[in-house]
Amino acid sequence: MCGSDQAIVIKCSKCSSGVLPEDTENNSRLNLPADAIINLDHGDPTMYESYWRKLGNMCTVMFTGYQSLSYFANPKNLCWFLEPKLEEEIKKLHNVVGNATVEGYHIVVGTGSSQLIQAVLYALSDPLNEANPISVVSATPYYSSYSEVTDFVRSGLYKWAGDAHNFDKDGPYIEMVTSPNNPDGVIREPVVNKAQGMLVHDLAYYWPQYTPITGPADYDIMLFTVSKCTGHAGSRIGWALVRDINVARKMVKFIEINTIGVSKEAQQRAAKILEVISDSCSQTVRPPELDNFFEYGQHLLTERWKKLKDLVEFNELFTLPKFPLQYCNFTGDFTEAHPAFAWMKCEEEVDCEKLFRGHKILTRSGKRFGSDPKYVRISMMSRDEEFDLFVQRLSSIHGIANGN
Amino acid sequence: MCGSDQAIVIKCSKCSSGVLPEDTENNSRLNLPADAIINLDHGDPTMYESYWRKLGNMCTVMFTGYQSLSYFANPKNLCWFLEPKLEEEIKKLHNVVGNATVEGYHIVVGTGSSQLIQAVLYALSDPLNEANPISVVSATPYYSSYSEVTDFVRSGLYKWAGDAHNFDKDGPYIEMVTSPNNPDGVIREPVVNKAQGMLVHDLAYYWPQYTPITGPADYDIMLFTVSKCTGHAGSRIGWALVRDINVARKMVKFIEINTIGVSKEAQQRAAKILEVISDSCSQTVRPPELDNFFEYGQHLLTERWKKLKDLVEFNELFTLPKFPLQYCNFTGDFTEAHPAFAWMKCEEEVDCEKLFRGHKILTRSGKRFGSDPKYVRISMMSRDEEFDLFVQRLSSIHGIANGN
Repeated sequence: MCGSDQAIVIKCSKCSSGVLPEDTENNSRLNLPADAIINLDHGDPTMYESYWRKLGNMCTVMFTGYQSLSYFANPKNLCWFLEPKLEEEIKKLHNVVGNATVEGYHIVVGTGSSQLIQAVLYALSDPLNEANPISVVSATPYYSSYSEVTDFVRSGLYKWAGDAHNFDKDGPYIEMVTSPNNPDGVIREPVVNKAQGMLVHDLAYYWPQYTPITGPADYDIMLFTVSKCTGHAGSRIGWALVRDINVARKMVKFIEINTIGVSKEAQQRAAKILEVISDSCSQTVRPPELDNFFEYGQHLLTERWKKLKDLVEFNELFTLPKFPLQYCNFTGDFTEAHPAFAWMKCEEEVDCEKLFRGHKILTRSGKRFGSDPKYVRISMMSRDEEFDLFVQRLSSIHGIANGN
Repeated sequence: MCGSDQAIVIKCSKCSSGVLPEDTENNSRLNLPADAIINLDHGDPTMYESYWRKLGNMCTVMFTGYQSLSYFANPKNLCWFLEPKLEEEIKKLHNVVGNATVEGYHIVVGTGSSQLIQAVLYALSDPLNEANPISVVSATPYYSSYSEVTDFVRSGLYKWAGDAHNFDKDGPYIEMVTSPNNPDGVIREPVVNKAQGMLVHDLAYYWPQYTPITGPADYDIMLFTVSKCTGHAGSRIGWALVRDINVARKMVKFIEINTIGVSKEAQQRAAKILEVISDSCSQTVRPPELDNFFEYGQHLLTERWKKLKDLVEFNELFTLPKFPLQYCNFTGDFTEAHPAFAWMKCEEEVDCEKLFRGHKILTRSGKRFGSDPKYVRISMMSRDEEFDLFVQRLSSIHGIANGN
């Protein structure tokens, strides 16, 4: 319909640091006071800022005033608001990383994966069966937002039914399979396994920095998000790979009604970011100053997990999950998972979230994940300064026997 | 929490046309064949592209790879995902135009005004009264999306109850007051006027290019959108001015669950665009090459309405609404409204949408607005080429008596 919505996503090395406000150089230094509250409740992926800062203007994007006025990005596409360049870069990245099959899939872009989850529930539910909303389940510990996202407007189409292990109703249901799992990093399979089940694979963390890539996923519906892949949570860009065209079509309808599409600026910037990380993985294309993005992330998380494990090993109060060594097709090495969250257990009968709060560390209680208050989820994706302060404080927390 | 999310919104006059792909110069020329389908169904505001194109790089924004990674834009603000610069520019623009009071209001940003409408319904409904979802009404002809947005997930919190003129239930209700109205451009007041009514003023079109500005609106809840104000529909940015802090807080909660905030890129770009149009209205700040944005838009719409009225005056088949001359505080002139849509009536017993479709003109049927199929809504905001082709075809459509 209109050519003006094509991405103008360009490197602009000429207008580099000279035009950037000086104070941006200091943005990543929080200069936290020693008694600062450390918020590790959210999974805010600010640890990646150091990588992107090193790149300077290598992946700068520009928008003139006259770009992307229209609602439409690609009127002929099923997903008419999806920027063609983003579609291309999503496909390329999956092929480079080898974590998902894209051939034969429809891509639906969303305002983050939260919107895509709602779009999936809408697409898989039966509008003619209003008396009986479809059950949505996930195995505990499950991502704390699933219940809230499913029930917040009390939809008559779908309803949260809790822990998949306890689900025994007949008829259709939707099971959210999060793999690696949020909060505990475990690789998951569906647990209900009944005939009328529909599976949604939330693969937000199936990237090499978090977990070994054991092969391309090829499930019916797979969800990904830029937030956890590259760290650009502020952009609110997620995508779904959907096999069935009718499901994809209904998801697009949901997003059309909910927000009339997805920000073009965010999509075009995400396309550039994905392009750069694909390039960073290539021996032939990669400029010398560009580290492999996933190796960089993996390295950072490996270091952090080592610090945390070393501490917890000598602390009788806490335990952490253990992960098997697995061969990663992407790195060509045997490696453990280094999840985005630490799912920490207090071995005494205490409310673990409260315990940490007493030390000015905000975490998310196991209760929020349908689990026990002895557990907390701790983000491993904060900035260095926050992580270091967390580790420092953690080293001073001991069991009741040893004084808390 | 983190300074890195501050807007870097800058003029970059050095890296101007030299780095822009050449084909962008031609984007606004559609080169439509004479028998092309003209889509005037959507209110896609592409007519503004000519204004923005004239500005070249005057309002170009840039994003480096390391900006805006966090979910948070302003963690201390009630609306924690609202970019401070956007908040500032929204307030400035309302003060410059004089179309809304901002003092004493909370600003909530949304992914377009569709999301804000849902956030308002969520905020005004009573979660404890699930058996009895609150009725949502609007006077016919009402914006066609209201019913769809209210009912698409069959919420137990709120329910579309149709034409406000027919509403006679007791108890709380929500009335959408769209002024100027979409589709017909009329200035509106609430029509139910019962004690427990809650009003939402959708003021998307209360800008000087569409209608005389007769004073600053100061209703409890007012919705605006960048799409219709500046033409940047692709950005998906809207905002609400909300008097009651608890309503604002619940709206923020809705957007948090629905999409975990709003794209930072889109917000920062919108801030720059609003800044430029505020500047364009100022005798002191305005650079000589910058036309007053609202005067430009008003001029364009005045020309188009003149062409359309001249045609319709001599065509016995169609009629258009008439608008009174009113004093506009912004322009300092007496002027008529020049709405974003023409609400056209066929004076014969025909399905008007079908009639236009036969001439390859896509419009939206009156039925979609709770009205009669004798009416259609026609977008006046298309590109020149499309508008001219529409007018040309319209001149050949006559009543049955004269041959159609």
